[in-house]
Amino acid sequence: MNVEVVNTGTELLLGNVVNSHLAFLAQALFPLGLRIQRQVTVPDGDAIRDALKESFARADVVLVTGGLGPTTDDITRDVTAELLGAPLLEDREVLAAIHERFARRGFALTERVKLQALVPRGAAVLPNAHGTAPGLYFEKTENSPHLFLLPGPPRELKPMFNHSALPILRRILPPGSVAECRSFTIPGVGESAVEAEIGEALLAIPGIELGYCARPGSVDVRCIGSKEMLDRAEEIIMGRFREHVVARDGRPLEAVIVGLLAARGAKLAVAESCTGGCLSNQITNVPGSSAVFIEGVVTYSNDAKTRLLEVDAVLLGEHGAVSAAVASAMAENALRLSGADYALSLTGIAGPGGGTEGKPVGTVFIGLAGRGGVVKTHQHHFPTDRETFKYLASQTALYHLHKTLISPP
Amino acid sequence: MNVEVVNTGTELLLGNVVNSHLAFLAQALFPLGLRIQRQVTVPDGDAIRDALKESFARADVVLVTGGLGPTTDDITRDVTAELLGAPLLEDREVLAAIHERFARRGFALTERVKLQALVPRGAAVLPNAHGTAPGLYFEKTENSPHLFLLPGPPRELKPMFNHSALPILRRILPPGSVAECRSFTIPGVGESAVEAEIGEALLAIPGIELGYCARPGSVDVRCIGSKEMLDRAEEIIMGRFREHVVARDGRPLEAVIVGLLAARGAKLAVAESCTGGCLSNQITNVPGSSAVFIEGVVTYSNDAKTRLLEVDAVLLGEHGAVSAAVASAMAENALRLSGADYALSLTGIAGPGGGTEGKPVGTVFIGLAGRGGVVKTHQHHFPTDRETFKYLASQTALYHLHKTLISPP
Repeated sequence: MNVEVVNTGTELLLGNVVNSHLAFLAQALFPLGLRIQRQVTVPDGDAIRDALKESFARADVVLVTGGLGPTTDDITRDVTAELLGAPLLEDREVLAAIHERFARRGFALTERVKLQALVPRGAAVLPNAHGTAPGLYFEKTENSPHLFLLPGPPRELKPMFNHSALPILRRILPPGSVAECRSFTIPGVGESAVEAEIGEALLAIPGIELGYCARPGSVDVRCIGSKEMLDRAEEIIMGRFREHVVARDGRPLEAVIVGLLAARGAKLAVAESCTGGCLSNQITNVPGSSAVFIEGVVTYSNDAKTRLLEVDAVLLGEHGAVSAAVASAMAENALRLSGADYALSLTGIAGPGGGTEGKPVGTVFIGLAGRGGVVKTHQHHFPTDRETFKYLASQTALYHLHKTLISPP
Repeated sequence: MNVEVVNTGTELLLGNVVNSHLAFLAQALFPLGLRIQRQVTVPDGDAIRDALKESFARADVVLVTGGLGPTTDDITRDVTAELLGAPLLEDREVLAAIHERFARRGFALTERVKLQALVPRGAAVLPNAHGTAPGLYFEKTENSPHLFLLPGPPRELKPMFNHSALPILRRILPPGSVAECRSFTIPGVGESAVEAEIGEALLAIPGIELGYCARPGSVDVRCIGSKEMLDRAEEIIMGRFREHVVARDGRPLEAVIVGLLAARGAKLAVAESCTGGCLSNQITNVPGSSAVFIEGVVTYSNDAKTRLLEVDAVLLGEHGAVSAAVASAMAENALRLSGADYALSLTGIAGPGGGTEGKPVGTVFIGLAGRGGVVKTHQHHFPTDRETFKYLASQTALYHLHKTLISPP
């Protein structure tokens, strides 16, 4: 089945909003054995018509997001009705739901709002629990694919997709074997060296699909295939790179770490300066992280480092806040004060300002304190923009913790 | 000028990575008066050829990301050379830079790595300060657009684009008037009501381009045009919705807040539970936030709330951690302990577990303490996935602070 996604929305092409729909839909479709072959973003307006026409000609399943709302630039519903030759009919149930929603919120019902109750003939209505405009589903015909029109706002799209679109997809899908995806993150080795060392052995697994993706300081080797294929691939990769490799089953590193900590009943505390809450935020994105994450502090000022983490003011004066000594003290004290089993700390210069010759923008010191109060520090340099720096520094701290967690005692 | 972006990378279509390139490129191109008309994502492999061919036929400028690396699935360079009929020639300078880079890192130089030194005849090399593969630029011809091949990893792409691609674009662009973009975020009113109230008046500004985008609990009205047009639009919008509106010049709410606080020399502290560092992370994404952000604490456990924020254990027992009383105590104590002028607190249930009948998943209490120790609390309900909940709750806390900051004393 050839699946395509059409995202509509001028705000996406202006860069006001990052497109999170594609990753969400891709992750939701993969377990059904569905892979997105192409995604296109077009602005609100006539370009939607061209994009839909092209996708209709190529794909078996097309998922469209956005353009279902009440304003004049919302034309996805009209364009689809026109392309499919389906007249728009007012749907009483949808109209009643809109009436009720507006009455509950005390909003006035304008004429344009009522347009959202128009449904092209033959379409199934996908109820919108978190917004006004319903989604729509059209069965495949000779000239058109299975077509889903979904709302643009993520908090409307995600529940609607899970509750209404997924059951339809499960029903229309031909039964078949579903592949799995496993990613192996290998830090400290170049992309070409990884492929040179294991590429041939992996390719000798019949039917496996491989991909290599360079990450900052690491390489992702992505394997797709049956469980048997992936077990063989894992054996090859682990045989060569056992020391550092993170196997992810599609999970982010923070989810792997929460799992490892939970399995051994260990607790984590975090002390951040330059990453400003980014590391705590990554960890607490993982459902169930409350079982392992005790607390985090974001000590941007020196005063906060002293008051919340009891970092010695003399130490701060002597070494500067961005130093191995302060990273070490932050981790050690966070461990002791919180009663955690592990503590991570970060202090550095996110930029764009604040760099010096000896400590340029992008410098970061990472501290890791473990049971028995052992503290290790690591220095890294990520000369990039502020947000990327925060992300990379946080992920690198997690790599250090991961290495400790998988090392034999 | 018709601009298109082609993002290559199977990982994007598998949902392993969110595409951050589009927003970056869009924001960088806008000040030059360039708007992206279409963006497409294709997997590594032959689909790249089709996507390039289609964009070549439509666009004046095409920006391609990804597929320049050393592994066998990196074919952007080869496909481009083939489409343009340009033979690949080894570039000595590029090869020398690769040699030096690998020697410095102690990596072995494989044959595949050297392929990255192949440059199609006629292309200009865009040096890669943070990776191996250089970018490439091809001048417009009768049959092909201005073409930029850029690396996939964000930390390679962003500096290369800023340092090498932008100067070329400035050189080739015809001089003309550059439009501005201003967004107005209007909370508490429906999308259709906003358009009904001000849509006609805004459309009466000749030449203005308008867009409406529904956000959780608010609507963005996007205006593009000359400074004069935008000033008129601002007058109309402020005249009708002055009380709450946030004018953003394309800036996120957290940047507006950092600006307001900095202008009055005020400091902010943050006490988070359910949002797990998300709010601190949003604020510290803003360059210069260290001037206004003193500290944040992420008190996931009750024990942490007591120790770091001195929240009374009896209060926690009586009301529960998710309550207006605890939100109020968190904000009040964060203000007092940090010495800040404003403190925000959040306590709630991010889910997917942990909900009860009286306090379902998605419940959040937000506390805001200001000078003189005045504390207000607000209750909201965002029934959505965990990450979206954290984002929405954090943005809503910022809205409450914004309203306080712009209110007359």
